[in-house]
Amino acid sequence: MSGDASYTVTALNGIGDIQPGDDVGQVIADALAATGRELANGDVICVASKIISVAEGRRTALDTITPTECALRLQAQIPRRDARVVQTIIDQTADPTGRRVAVSGDHISGWLPNGLVLTSAGVDSAGPDAVLLLPTDPDASAAGIAAHLRVATGRQVSVIITDSDGRPDKRGATQVAVGVHGITPLRTSHGDETLCDMLAAAAAVMMGQRSAGRPVAIVRGVEYAYDPTARIGDALHDANKIDGRSQR
Amino acid sequence: MSGDASYTVTALNGIGDIQPGDDVGQVIADALAATGRELANGDVICVASKIISVAEGRRTALDTITPTECALRLQAQIPRRDARVVQTIIDQTADPTGRRVAVSGDHISGWLPNGLVLTSAGVDSAGPDAVLLLPTDPDASAAGIAAHLRVATGRQVSVIITDSDGRPDKRGATQVAVGVHGITPLRTSHGDETLCDMLAAAAAVMMGQRSAGRPVAIVRGVEYAYDPTARIGDALHDANKIDGRSQR
Repeated sequence: MSGDASYTVTALNGIGDIQPGDDVGQVIADALAATGRELANGDVICVASKIISVAEGRRTALDTITPTECALRLQAQIPRRDARVVQTIIDQTADPTGRRVAVSGDHISGWLPNGLVLTSAGVDSAGPDAVLLLPTDPDASAAGIAAHLRVATGRQVSVIITDSDGRPDKRGATQVAVGVHGITPLRTSHGDETLCDMLAAAAAVMMGQRSAGRPVAIVRGVEYAYDPTARIGDALHDANKIDGRSQR
Repeated sequence: MSGDASYTVTALNGIGDIQPGDDVGQVIADALAATGRELANGDVICVASKIISVAEGRRTALDTITPTECALRLQAQIPRRDARVVQTIIDQTADPTGRRVAVSGDHISGWLPNGLVLTSAGVDSAGPDAVLLLPTDPDASAAGIAAHLRVATGRQVSVIITDSDGRPDKRGATQVAVGVHGITPLRTSHGDETLCDMLAAAAAVMMGQRSAGRPVAIVRGVEYAYDPTARIGDALHDANKIDGRSQR
């Protein structure tokens, strides 16, 4: 074999059920110790936003939500969705008029205040009676995990927080980045490349969807720009200029 | 290190400039031989559609194209695009009314007859005077490459043809799959996952954008369903049901 450039994606085994109040950085450090896996400087740790949401207590019981007229109007277009879930999606966009929510076919997407456009505005079902919201500040969650791993392992790693998302033309979902720490999310060496999303998708191959029980993957060998001040916003269009692009 | 599952993505060096009439399968076989790299059964070879388009002679000179009224009307919304390029995009959607083309901001997308929705309907610039269209049948191109590599190397590999594409909310581009051979493009073990796009994005990390000169990457170690009849359409929504979803 020649010395061609390559990188590796590995699922981290040993992550059990996450409980509210858990420290996800510690959970990952424990799984590393339990499996005998060592990190290397420069590794990119991809973490499913769902486990961070659970740890951060971002679960909301549906019986605490009263849908507005706007939610009922939108829900009429997608009857299979609960109106209280639709209300939660509207709430996540921070625009009560529903103008930052797009419905087409049986697909609903929401344009978050930071500029991200996600299926269901990142709102996940959490059983029949509750929903799970995105972490409050995924960049901060990523920074906390990286700091914890630095102390626990002595390695400087970057972290990408991922969420599952689909395309309008394809069936199924892949993963995109919703938060970063350490890694510049946009690569610009040969035109603009959404490196954070490429790595989130590469991790998704090993992580699988939520029921697969593999919410963490380690990406090793990718050259990237390290920047401790990197934020997901660096890869997002100006939220004020995106108007119209959210209609999909 | 533990025995956790992992996979590897490697850029294939040694692919030179492609010329019209080249056999891309042979070009890849030559690069493998020149770099001493061996394939393994089950490898997934990701190939940029651009080199196949060039090999297949899918270049069209702009001075052979006369924009219709529809193209001129759409082009007025995105003045930086050449009206003849807009006409080519409309032509790719096979709907002269322009109803399968969506413009928002400075972004134009086209809904292809097979159900794919791509930036510029997959039409690429090829210098100031020409455009490059997608391969005529990317699944067939993938099959041809796999067959060639089987003869040249004795290995049974799968092939994914990739195209660069972006999201409405993020800057930059990643890669999506536009054609497959051998690999079932949708993974359904834990809900529906767009495996073909995950692998296209994973390959993009090593391939880079067009000017990087690395149009082929080898993905090794991913478990997937092998199916010699797999087609990209297996991952696409029914083209008749997608209406409205192409408006993004």
